[in-house]
Amino acid sequence: MSAAVCRPPVFIDAESGFTLDLTGMGLRPAQLAKLAAPLARAHAEMVRLEAGAIKNPDENRKVTHFSDRLTYADSAQFREVEAFARAIAAGGEIEQVLVNGIGGSALGPQLLQQAAHGPYWNEQAAAARRHFPKIYFVDNTDSAGLADALAVLDLGKTLAVTISKSGGTQETKNNMLALEAAYRAAGIPFGPHAAAVTMPGSELDRYARAGHWRQIFPMADSIGGRTSETNIVGHVPAALAGIDFAAVVAGGRHMDELTRNPDPAQNPAYLLAAAWYIAGRGKGERNMVVVPYSDRLGLMGKYLQQLVMESLGKEKDLDGKVVHQGLTVFGNKGGTDAHAYIQQLNDGRDDFFALFIEPLRDAAHYPIDAQLSMGDYLHGFKEGLVRALTGKGRRVAEISLAAADVFNLGMLIALFERAVAVYAELIHINAFHQPGVQAYKLASKDVTAVYLKLQEWLATPAASGWHGGAAAAAAACGCPEQVRSVAGWLDKLAVNGRAVAAGRRVSRAVVAGVWEYGVN
Amino acid sequence: MSAAVCRPPVFIDAESGFTLDLTGMGLRPAQLAKLAAPLARAHAEMVRLEAGAIKNPDENRKVTHFSDRLTYADSAQFREVEAFARAIAAGGEIEQVLVNGIGGSALGPQLLQQAAHGPYWNEQAAAARRHFPKIYFVDNTDSAGLADALAVLDLGKTLAVTISKSGGTQETKNNMLALEAAYRAAGIPFGPHAAAVTMPGSELDRYARAGHWRQIFPMADSIGGRTSETNIVGHVPAALAGIDFAAVVAGGRHMDELTRNPDPAQNPAYLLAAAWYIAGRGKGERNMVVVPYSDRLGLMGKYLQQLVMESLGKEKDLDGKVVHQGLTVFGNKGGTDAHAYIQQLNDGRDDFFALFIEPLRDAAHYPIDAQLSMGDYLHGFKEGLVRALTGKGRRVAEISLAAADVFNLGMLIALFERAVAVYAELIHINAFHQPGVQAYKLASKDVTAVYLKLQEWLATPAASGWHGGAAAAAAACGCPEQVRSVAGWLDKLAVNGRAVAAGRRVSRAVVAGVWEYGVN
Repeated sequence: MSAAVCRPPVFIDAESGFTLDLTGMGLRPAQLAKLAAPLARAHAEMVRLEAGAIKNPDENRKVTHFSDRLTYADSAQFREVEAFARAIAAGGEIEQVLVNGIGGSALGPQLLQQAAHGPYWNEQAAAARRHFPKIYFVDNTDSAGLADALAVLDLGKTLAVTISKSGGTQETKNNMLALEAAYRAAGIPFGPHAAAVTMPGSELDRYARAGHWRQIFPMADSIGGRTSETNIVGHVPAALAGIDFAAVVAGGRHMDELTRNPDPAQNPAYLLAAAWYIAGRGKGERNMVVVPYSDRLGLMGKYLQQLVMESLGKEKDLDGKVVHQGLTVFGNKGGTDAHAYIQQLNDGRDDFFALFIEPLRDAAHYPIDAQLSMGDYLHGFKEGLVRALTGKGRRVAEISLAAADVFNLGMLIALFERAVAVYAELIHINAFHQPGVQAYKLASKDVTAVYLKLQEWLATPAASGWHGGAAAAAAACGCPEQVRSVAGWLDKLAVNGRAVAAGRRVSRAVVAGVWEYGVN
Repeated sequence: MSAAVCRPPVFIDAESGFTLDLTGMGLRPAQLAKLAAPLARAHAEMVRLEAGAIKNPDENRKVTHFSDRLTYADSAQFREVEAFARAIAAGGEIEQVLVNGIGGSALGPQLLQQAAHGPYWNEQAAAARRHFPKIYFVDNTDSAGLADALAVLDLGKTLAVTISKSGGTQETKNNMLALEAAYRAAGIPFGPHAAAVTMPGSELDRYARAGHWRQIFPMADSIGGRTSETNIVGHVPAALAGIDFAAVVAGGRHMDELTRNPDPAQNPAYLLAAAWYIAGRGKGERNMVVVPYSDRLGLMGKYLQQLVMESLGKEKDLDGKVVHQGLTVFGNKGGTDAHAYIQQLNDGRDDFFALFIEPLRDAAHYPIDAQLSMGDYLHGFKEGLVRALTGKGRRVAEISLAAADVFNLGMLIALFERAVAVYAELIHINAFHQPGVQAYKLASKDVTAVYLKLQEWLATPAASGWHGGAAAAAAACGCPEQVRSVAGWLDKLAVNGRAVAAGRRVSRAVVAGVWEYGVN
């Protein structure tokens, strides 16, 4: 890297007003120089990635979220989504949209909704919403989430959008099935109120076709969940709420151009990846604390937590060597959280670097006195915190944006997508798979299998009137090594008090300090 | 501790169904035995604290959030708040409540609202809300936050509740002043639409009295912001939304009873504090990842982040020795986030312990197939994740609750309040002050002072037509050592384009790779 730019390491894009300032990261020129060759190799890999190489070897997949942005806004698919959303808004019979998806299919759309519309879109009058529908999300298999949404949805005026690449994601499938049952119970046909975003030929695709759903949008196999926000997955929920999605993609494309620069000193994604590498000594030894000084960008920490930790938290490197990599991310909005976890950042453990994101444009001008407005205070608090932290030798990276709008959000998403991909090259891992999630899914299936065995046993005459501890129950239902799982299911059954298998109900009581169970 | 209970370390409260299971924390009996004497000393301190000792020596304050719960629900103040809230609901002229507070005055009330009512309270019909008002929050000095609220508030039907112990908290004061200006602009008197929760004699108290505010609720000096949720600070917003706050306090009291037990093995707060101590070797060397398996408790991670990090993140111990203590907390809800940061927890850095919180009762029964309901899947995913994590030797603590209701939330709050206080004794720090926040406030004041100097200079004839870099501007306005702060203010002015001091406006452009500024 050229010393001129690296001391201090500041990147400015005059066109958009984007500034990345790494002065507070305490990077030494020698550290940066050592990364020049690895970054050049990483750059070559990024060129290969964008040219269509298989960069997700485990899953034998291309990775197209960067290159897709080049063409997406001019594609037939883009126009189709826009036309669909306009027709929904103009049609008048749909007033509410329920977005059903998890992980990348939930966090990105939620981040964008909040950035574009703030927290109260649904409470605005129809005219203020330009007659675009209200938006709701279900993103878990907690019955409370769906019940809370159903309490305010008018099913006859609701469009349910189910987003799942494979269609096999259980949480999303559960919400879809429970929702369909709610339509059935209400005597309203589901198909005309349902839309899907999924891979052609997937389980969901087949289901939606069989059910004559109103619309099915195809999703490419090369799009990963956590990097799908500037593509069809982000587009459908955004367009339905009247968000200018072309601006999101344009922001992403603009950042892509800035971050294709082979000179690390002139490339904000490479600078950021280098700063992460140096701060955490290539092993994520410092937490990244994301602090957006913006209510509208309040979900940024949560979004980046997924993007970064799911991408970089890996057991093995590309050669199969056990490395237990990762980069921990958390954070809530500044300045209010300065009255919360910032106490520890100021005074406590020096095990982090903070990443400040500050949109400079005030949403509104509220004068507080003759010289200071509400937004001036926000800036003053941010500067004060940077000063306090750096004064104590704590590490700070700063991003400054012109505004908290959707173009700038598109820029941020593309910046972090590339920083993650490049950092993954530096530490030689696959950023695009998630084997730990698969492992956990398999473990969950085993646990569910125990429940089925338990139900089988509960239905037998032997279970009638039975009482005893979890170990005895586990032995009785033929899985003596599954005491823990059996106990969990018995607890769940006892608290819910619902009849299962042959009408049996479970109760529990503490006997000699442990739970014991009874079957009626 | 008695070995019988510590192998495995499980605490069960049969009455409420609360279970704390530390089996997955890998605690060794020898480690627990070593903590017996420190925990006995900590217990003696907790007894002193509840008896009214000065446990916040820096600020010469008692700490009464535990003992207050003994009497609060039977107090005149409690009845006064309830009567006020009932009168508001019955009166019909107030339909919306804007809660204005930050830190503890925002996170606790938000957590409770979400737990009691889910995310869509404001969208429910008045009858479903039992005619209690809709609830909104402003918790920052970001103009977007207030502008978004004002877009949906009908000021004539709104009650603005300002919560600030001292009344000097700038973010809260700013929102209050801007809100008052909005009332003035709308020609609606502010006083009848304003209520305060503050310390008698505070700046806010005096202001509210002078403005003939509708109601002023007194707040005791001995209540800290981050431990105020079961007292007046939590009560007023909760009661206004019709939440059964007596149940919250009862939950807290019930947990207080359980956690006054001098035997650590029978005291869940002491067990938890011991587990934290052992996992992080008394220095917070592992992050605590809070994973509530409950949409309604989705804010638990954020709430605990404040409670724990603001309390434990300290530079010095009680003897003035530099220790840089802390315990990092983050987390979002399970199981959906299993598709996000859980990849790293499963496979990546082993630098954490997970704390699962599972309410067993399903909010609603949605069958997915003949044998499994939506809530069964949630439990299966939780068990699967515990199995996956512990199978890899990762550390897991588990809390199981009967339900995600306000009584159980009260229990959780009291549990963590005491675990924090006891852990602070183990590491010999003051859990009840926040000197780092004060330091940051002072730094922010310095930054704001630079802005006033800059404005002064901008108003001079010399500034007219001026252009140059930040260093030159800093020199020109008489603070040559404040280049960074001057640059920040010039950026802010340039992007917002508003006229300041003598009508001057600032613009900026990139010259030779750095921002340069112009004054009109």
